[in-house]
Amino acid sequence: MDYNRIFTQAIDRLHGEGRYRVFIDILRNKGMFPNARCFAGHNGPKPITVWCSNDYLSMGQHPKVIAAMEEALHDVGAGAGGTRNIGGNTHYHVDLEAELADLHGKEAALLFTSGYVSNEATLSTLAKILPGCVIFSDELNHASMIAGIRNSGCEKRVFRHNDLAHLEELLAAEAPDTPKLIAFESVYSMDADISPIAAICDLADKYGALTYLDEVHAVGMYGPRGGGISEREGVAHRLTVIEGTLGKAFGVMGGYIAADQVIVDVIRSYAPGFIFTTSLSPVLVAGVLASVRHLKESSEEREGQQAAATMLKAMFAGAGLPVMNSTTHIVPLMVGDPVEAKRISDILLAEYGVYVQPINYPTVPRGTERLRFTPGPTHTPEMMRELTDALVEIWGRLELRLAA
Amino acid sequence: MDYNRIFTQAIDRLHGEGRYRVFIDILRNKGMFPNARCFAGHNGPKPITVWCSNDYLSMGQHPKVIAAMEEALHDVGAGAGGTRNIGGNTHYHVDLEAELADLHGKEAALLFTSGYVSNEATLSTLAKILPGCVIFSDELNHASMIAGIRNSGCEKRVFRHNDLAHLEELLAAEAPDTPKLIAFESVYSMDADISPIAAICDLADKYGALTYLDEVHAVGMYGPRGGGISEREGVAHRLTVIEGTLGKAFGVMGGYIAADQVIVDVIRSYAPGFIFTTSLSPVLVAGVLASVRHLKESSEEREGQQAAATMLKAMFAGAGLPVMNSTTHIVPLMVGDPVEAKRISDILLAEYGVYVQPINYPTVPRGTERLRFTPGPTHTPEMMRELTDALVEIWGRLELRLAA
Repeated sequence: MDYNRIFTQAIDRLHGEGRYRVFIDILRNKGMFPNARCFAGHNGPKPITVWCSNDYLSMGQHPKVIAAMEEALHDVGAGAGGTRNIGGNTHYHVDLEAELADLHGKEAALLFTSGYVSNEATLSTLAKILPGCVIFSDELNHASMIAGIRNSGCEKRVFRHNDLAHLEELLAAEAPDTPKLIAFESVYSMDADISPIAAICDLADKYGALTYLDEVHAVGMYGPRGGGISEREGVAHRLTVIEGTLGKAFGVMGGYIAADQVIVDVIRSYAPGFIFTTSLSPVLVAGVLASVRHLKESSEEREGQQAAATMLKAMFAGAGLPVMNSTTHIVPLMVGDPVEAKRISDILLAEYGVYVQPINYPTVPRGTERLRFTPGPTHTPEMMRELTDALVEIWGRLELRLAA
Repeated sequence: MDYNRIFTQAIDRLHGEGRYRVFIDILRNKGMFPNARCFAGHNGPKPITVWCSNDYLSMGQHPKVIAAMEEALHDVGAGAGGTRNIGGNTHYHVDLEAELADLHGKEAALLFTSGYVSNEATLSTLAKILPGCVIFSDELNHASMIAGIRNSGCEKRVFRHNDLAHLEELLAAEAPDTPKLIAFESVYSMDADISPIAAICDLADKYGALTYLDEVHAVGMYGPRGGGISEREGVAHRLTVIEGTLGKAFGVMGGYIAADQVIVDVIRSYAPGFIFTTSLSPVLVAGVLASVRHLKESSEEREGQQAAATMLKAMFAGAGLPVMNSTTHIVPLMVGDPVEAKRISDILLAEYGVYVQPINYPTVPRGTERLRFTPGPTHTPEMMRELTDALVEIWGRLELRLAA
């Protein structure tokens, strides 16, 4: 067996399609986000502005978060030292789960090491517990939800993105006594649109289905206390499971679900991805606790983000750049080709000190490659003007298509 | 559909089998491990001694680790802010991967958010890339390896634990041109024994198989630089992939693989569990970097751990307690019943301030429930004597079987 040839061919395919990825080597500057240092090019650190971070509200540098982490580091040390069941359950974990349950108005919450793991572990376990369960999945669901659904071994029905008629058609085709689970997101991060949560809950009620809502691109950022789109629209109580992340708007790392006590009990008792893993470092948990508590009371960061997103969308549109329709804080520019997307990104970094990553397959479908900007409360109008000017210059230089 | 009834039944089954798990709520005391505070019982924090931590060498409180984390926290902030591909690749990550590649004498290394994810993502992706691959898996492999193997969709052959003849019989039964992968561990944590790595590599050579070695319970603790059992036995270069954790002996959180550059490139390019997840917080990575570097140069912690394990095993055996045969740092006491194991653990915590978790199914097979002690360099002879005396008293009180 020439294993090396097979592995080399797998890498060559990526080069051939222009989607071989190179990690951009950076260090952010705490207290000065979105400013950072870039190590690419090996000429020593070079200052850059980060435009593609998911630390959407710059909470990763918030003084309360830093202080809480420092205190935990000195009080209890670096790691948890075990799984939640065996030595790794700290008082911080217990407190944070109570805080997250409250955020979503649920009885209980459960922490995972990442949003990916929370989706994979919860969906695969929930569906396995329900004999003959059929899962209804939005076609643009995140890779981690798809992994959970596939690993459950259940039947899956994929409905067209946010298409209620198609979802109903698929629900109606199943027997009434078949266990059903509808899995979807609130904010779709790459397309920057929002799902009709209440209408999906109506269908769930009509056909007796459970609902699983991924709010990773919404928690902290929407709703008066940062409870996500489901809080903003007053429908959190109608959802069976709400899933979120601690690594985006909350600025740290980790994932969670919030649900009824019995469901949380089932997941923590049966999900291998929860049981057999060292629990989140108490240092991280302490930081998240401070972040969640702050964003429950402060809307300043949310308002700053929304204002920045509105301004950047207007500037892009005004300059004729092909900005995609967005009803969220995310500002995607369609390019439609992986090689061009990478080229624009390379020029921005090398010539303008602007860091925005090209988004390629498998993150988005082939032919819809794009640049995805995430303006936040610390991006200034001046930064936005510089960015827009740079893009207009590059669009002209590369003779790219402007908006219709 | 009465979903609630199904979920409640799933929980009732656990109660019925005596293996419903209750999280013990603790905070460790940095600088005073294995001392900690326990919140169970709600009478305020109570001092306890932790005997079941996987922070095997107390590196979670090492001054170098704490200092490195504090520095990173103040320099770059709380979280990475994105995936490795999109904004979340920091200079700390790059440095740590180089350090881990060097630790195992490999060309490259790759970080994951946990050891669980590193096993799941690597095994499932490796085997998917190789058409028609058959995986040979030790029957006692960890749940995360089993998840990776199952999620690969490949054919699997399970060989009896550490049984070379059985492994060879299974290898010989496959066609010579079938891609093969042997997946096994070095230290089996629950049985405390070690696999015959060199002999398994001989079989891999003979039958043209790749090898995947999980060293999570060995890295940091064995070999002159903490490279694991494969370093101690001089066979690291013979293994295709070595997998390790950053959450046990290194004291922090996370997982990794070390392998040839092309294999690391394949995994980082194709594994959803790597691609679609926020990268490890730079604060954690900075701590691990300090920990790995320290343990490459210092053998003091390793020697202290081995001395403590030898002493505790001798004390248990001398007192007639049913200590399982262990050639490692782990000291398991066989109980053989989930209810009894939990009862002993409860008495130890409530009456003696000793925290050791009962180990039940699915972590170990039913009927082999046990207590698993992990003595380390900070457990004193006095703590060991108190523990042994407490166990002897409880064994007598509950009329449990002593060693034959």
